Amino acid sequence: MTRLLVRGGTILPMTARQDIFTGDLYIENGEIRGIYPGAAPAELVGEANETVDARNKLVLPGLVNAHTHAAMTLFRSYADDLPLMRWLEEAIWPAEAGLTGDDVYWGTMLAIAEMLKAGVTTFADMYFFMDRVAAAVADSGIRGHLSRGLVGLGPNAEQALAENEALFREWHNGADGRVRVWLGPHAPYTCPPDYLKRVMALADRLGTGLHIHLAETRTEVEDIQKQYGKSPTLLLDSIDLFERPVLAAHCVHLSPEEQAILARKRVGIAHNPESNMKLASGVAPVESLRRQQAVIGLGTDGAASNNNLDLIEEMRQAAFLQKVHLGDPTVMPAYSVLEMATVGGARALGWAEAIGTLEAGKRADLILLNLAQPHLAPRHDLVAHLVYAARGSDVDTVVVDGRVLVRSGKLVGLDEERIMAEAQKRAIRLTNTVELAD
Amino acid sequence: MTRLLVRGGTILPMTARQDIFTGDLYIENGEIRGIYPGAAPAELVGEANETVDARNKLVLPGLVNAHTHAAMTLFRSYADDLPLMRWLEEAIWPAEAGLTGDDVYWGTMLAIAEMLKAGVTTFADMYFFMDRVAAAVADSGIRGHLSRGLVGLGPNAEQALAENEALFREWHNGADGRVRVWLGPHAPYTCPPDYLKRVMALADRLGTGLHIHLAETRTEVEDIQKQYGKSPTLLLDSIDLFERPVLAAHCVHLSPEEQAILARKRVGIAHNPESNMKLASGVAPVESLRRQQAVIGLGTDGAASNNNLDLIEEMRQAAFLQKVHLGDPTVMPAYSVLEMATVGGARALGWAEAIGTLEAGKRADLILLNLAQPHLAPRHDLVAHLVYAARGSDVDTVVVDGRVLVRSGKLVGLDEERIMAEAQKRAIRLTNTVELAD
Repeated sequence: MTRLLVRGGTILPMTARQDIFTGDLYIENGEIRGIYPGAAPAELVGEANETVDARNKLVLPGLVNAHTHAAMTLFRSYADDLPLMRWLEEAIWPAEAGLTGDDVYWGTMLAIAEMLKAGVTTFADMYFFMDRVAAAVADSGIRGHLSRGLVGLGPNAEQALAENEALFREWHNGADGRVRVWLGPHAPYTCPPDYLKRVMALADRLGTGLHIHLAETRTEVEDIQKQYGKSPTLLLDSIDLFERPVLAAHCVHLSPEEQAILARKRVGIAHNPESNMKLASGVAPVESLRRQQAVIGLGTDGAASNNNLDLIEEMRQAAFLQKVHLGDPTVMPAYSVLEMATVGGARALGWAEAIGTLEAGKRADLILLNLAQPHLAPRHDLVAHLVYAARGSDVDTVVVDGRVLVRSGKLVGLDEERIMAEAQKRAIRLTNTVELAD
Repeated sequence: MTRLLVRGGTILPMTARQDIFTGDLYIENGEIRGIYPGAAPAELVGEANETVDARNKLVLPGLVNAHTHAAMTLFRSYADDLPLMRWLEEAIWPAEAGLTGDDVYWGTMLAIAEMLKAGVTTFADMYFFMDRVAAAVADSGIRGHLSRGLVGLGPNAEQALAENEALFREWHNGADGRVRVWLGPHAPYTCPPDYLKRVMALADRLGTGLHIHLAETRTEVEDIQKQYGKSPTLLLDSIDLFERPVLAAHCVHLSPEEQAILARKRVGIAHNPESNMKLASGVAPVESLRRQQAVIGLGTDGAASNNNLDLIEEMRQAAFLQKVHLGDPTVMPAYSVLEMATVGGARALGWAEAIGTLEAGKRADLILLNLAQPHLAPRHDLVAHLVYAARGSDVDTVVVDGRVLVRSGKLVGLDEERIMAEAQKRAIRLTNTVELAD
């Protein structure tokens, strides 16, 4: 039995704004058994067979990346600064057409390596070859919330749905419970209502939820309005899609009425500020949603539209973008953004009973940040430090399900060199580009 | 004589968009003597008495932080998410009132430690006790463009001007040419036209330039308009302030006419997107200014309104903020932002004859980024990687004036522990807060 003691850290359990204290954390078999302000009882200290020195470190729940397409790391910086449709039609889609299951495995491993090193312990992924994504989650030790992207138009609609069901049957609660599987209807504009209803029926039969893109661009809203006489959000509401667990990515273009619906129906909203900025999709009304107690997580989206998977940077963007957009420096205060990146994301993924805060009885997903650095000195408000000054590279230690996956900033048990080499080789093949010399 | 050879890097000299190649750089006595695509001639290799291995590294000009208040690191994360005037009146100004020269020295040293580690080799600073800032520049090896902040209202107006002149006489071209001194009239709303005219006369007499805040907030524009019947920019233009070298920080609120004036008069514009976002000042029209070939650099502003001094992050913000604000993903492409952070900043500071690009005859200010990391893999477009995916912590080596100041990500010759301890002690005293336990 693994008994892990995390000693002497500054603990930020994300249970309430005022909760921050120096203390110990005791973990048994991947579960947090106790949190001790000051120090753990001497008998527990004696029983631990692994100890993490957390002095000079900030200890908090692992970050939850609430929306990404992990394997798109293969297309990081492949095509930037282009109009959206040229980017998709001339760069991304042709490159994706050549993807194999192995490519997706290695692209996902690259994403996992990057995310773990930057403190992400759970990610919600929507892509294809998702059995290979599940294998990457199993192999790496991270936690994954996986959905097969479903496009209801075209010849693969049935096949994709069958794959998502097979993924559920093979992987849901797999990898010691680190994998959960939802269904992934891509978006209202790629999944007509009839198809969505079949996806919903399957979700209900399996007892699972839906991960979907929603109201990302103005064009989407206008097209759906033209086609169905209502907005994407009202269209989904009209077919009762929100009556089950839903993770809705982006939610940029929402009327006040639509915001109220998402808040009331407890739809999990994955806010992706950097992607929305880089692709010029718009500014999501997250401050307004937050004031309505909506369920909000934070996502990076895929690396091609970000171009990294650093959720700490994403927190900063979420706060700064709302402040400048609303012309008010008091909106989206630091702690509220940190909630989105942890417990908010856990709720949005339907996983908050197990992760998102540091509390006895929850799974031991936690990260330690190294505070002894010039850009985090002096120490006034550590929450403001984390959201406004820290970087993914400040993460020193990462524990997922009680296992130490990053120690002193280095991956434990993953071959980073090989992952980067595999990704490089495949990226070159897929995009047909010439490699720059080192 | 120091002869430094930088071998086998991917060199991005920032001379033109297409210029990127593998090669060597040869430096003698702090000056770039030659850049060699492929490899340097064998006789030069033999003459070098220090070699930097740049394989797997991106070599580019050191970054220029075009506007900051370095010693404000002491107030990093001290008071956030407040309305602007409460932040200034209740937090920042009372804390600043207690500052001593020693505090400014150590706060500046903390900023320098942070900036060097993140690839900043030159910074433009406006604050007080500037002789101590100059001493920090001299002691640390960084390059500094220093101005005593001048407030023309109140009892210290004359004293401050005398201090700025003394600073010029003692330090201009000091520290082996690494210090330049300009005059620092704080802003149109703190320096009435009569005072500005006296500052201008002194600048002309000394043969130096002016560093000023301009059009940062809407309130400033409205107040000046009310008081003088014209906007801050037109007010400064009406007294011919722009007829000499000027570094104007922020420039957020500008009419098309004002933009054209700044572009035509070659005013150096220091764009500070993160500060403008965090304080909700607004979105500067930098894409428009860029299209008018204005001289634009990139700044972090002080750490209290940022909250770090990471210019790589600032590049990303500059690009993303314009894209989402203008609703166009093609504006502010990666290379244009990188220009602002290097050669644009050098021009804005009036220092482009010596720094800002890698060219034979210029001073050897350069940085190496470590490319062998998951978040920078695979390698498609390295400029996009740098602007959209990299972090300050990716900086591996920093050379200023031919001296290696950072090696393998660690400061050479600065006592980081002591700097952080001094800053911590002083921050606690100045803000009267209770220290959090580690």
